[in-house]
Amino acid sequence: MDEIRIIEIKKSVYENNDREADKLRQQLREEKTFLLNLMSSPGSGKTSLVLRTIEALGQEFKIGVLEADIDSAVDAQTVARTGTQVVQLHTGGMCHLDAGMTLRGLQELGTRDLDLVILENVGNLVCPAEFDTGASKSAMILSVPEGDDKPLKYPLMFSEVDALVLNKIDVLPYFDFDTDAVEERARRLNPNIPIFAVSAKTGQHTERWADWLRGEIRAWNSDAC
Amino acid sequence: MDEIRIIEIKKSVYENNDREADKLRQQLREEKTFLLNLMSSPGSGKTSLVLRTIEALGQEFKIGVLEADIDSAVDAQTVARTGTQVVQLHTGGMCHLDAGMTLRGLQELGTRDLDLVILENVGNLVCPAEFDTGASKSAMILSVPEGDDKPLKYPLMFSEVDALVLNKIDVLPYFDFDTDAVEERARRLNPNIPIFAVSAKTGQHTERWADWLRGEIRAWNSDAC
Repeated sequence: MDEIRIIEIKKSVYENNDREADKLRQQLREEKTFLLNLMSSPGSGKTSLVLRTIEALGQEFKIGVLEADIDSAVDAQTVARTGTQVVQLHTGGMCHLDAGMTLRGLQELGTRDLDLVILENVGNLVCPAEFDTGASKSAMILSVPEGDDKPLKYPLMFSEVDALVLNKIDVLPYFDFDTDAVEERARRLNPNIPIFAVSAKTGQHTERWADWLRGEIRAWNSDAC
Repeated sequence: MDEIRIIEIKKSVYENNDREADKLRQQLREEKTFLLNLMSSPGSGKTSLVLRTIEALGQEFKIGVLEADIDSAVDAQTVARTGTQVVQLHTGGMCHLDAGMTLRGLQELGTRDLDLVILENVGNLVCPAEFDTGASKSAMILSVPEGDDKPLKYPLMFSEVDALVLNKIDVLPYFDFDTDAVEERARRLNPNIPIFAVSAKTGQHTERWADWLRGEIRAWNSDAC
């Protein structure tokens, strides 16, 4: 556990989060570092998807990870075992990250040599959707056991993200989960959202998610030229 | 959908939430109404457990339900189909309820003739743990697919509640979930917490949860005499 850097970050002092987020995004663009803000409920499989993403893209891109949690460093320890640079952020009870808190984590991680930083946000479908972290793109996971009604209950999250991952499709036979209904409900909120039905546990279809992310990173870098 | 009363509640104006919560608890005690604050992640099975609770205790106690969500009335509609009095609360983007917001919902529901009100809080493991709603007792659900590391990541929630329900045990064979580890981690935070491993979907062992709740309601009423 000694190798995990744990940073206590409190709410930012900045009054205008959107301005700070835009500033951070511009800085990352100049550095050619792509920041992915990954959000979901607790236990939807964010860390498992991070591991699959490292597996798929780790040869091509230099990757770093920020793990945000209220407490513990279990996810950071899991990621560190892959040899990936990782910093654990403790949010002091806050259920989201803002741009200033994200910047603090990125400074600790050091982004100059990184192509991709994945920010695993606090497990929560409410607050994280309300704060721009300065990320290049954001994605959310909805896992099968959570139920197909979640776009109805947490519309802001589904409206704000750039991609939706439906995770844990390996357990579809054991749950009443209507994939078509979720896709229809999500697209009512976010008409062009790409949706990837995967199992981060078994690896099924995770290459489709990785392909999308690869394309977004390349577009980000070519825009920066 | 017409029969569902939907109330838009915003953050309370009260500065001292703890004082308001104590006042509400005292008022409910005098009315012999037991208020249960039920919390969990999104999709852990709060509504399914509410239905099982109504099934088990509905002959014995007059029950009302408050459903708190960011949006939609799907849970309230589900509960209404059982013939139970229910009010849907919309929290205006807030990820928790405080005592003032709960009081507003109780006024709409009307508690004088009710023995038990179940408040299904917003799906979230962070913010709801930080606010006393004025409930007689609180309980949380952790569902098997969420993983056994949740007490490590969300310690405040596990510390604050009066009972822990481990739900979706019907899918235990399909997940890496160590029930003993969860119990040990939960009891490290909350040494005497009663823990009920159930499946709200199949009904397995839900009578143990109902028995606990029945005992708490009776104790509440005899204390009020």
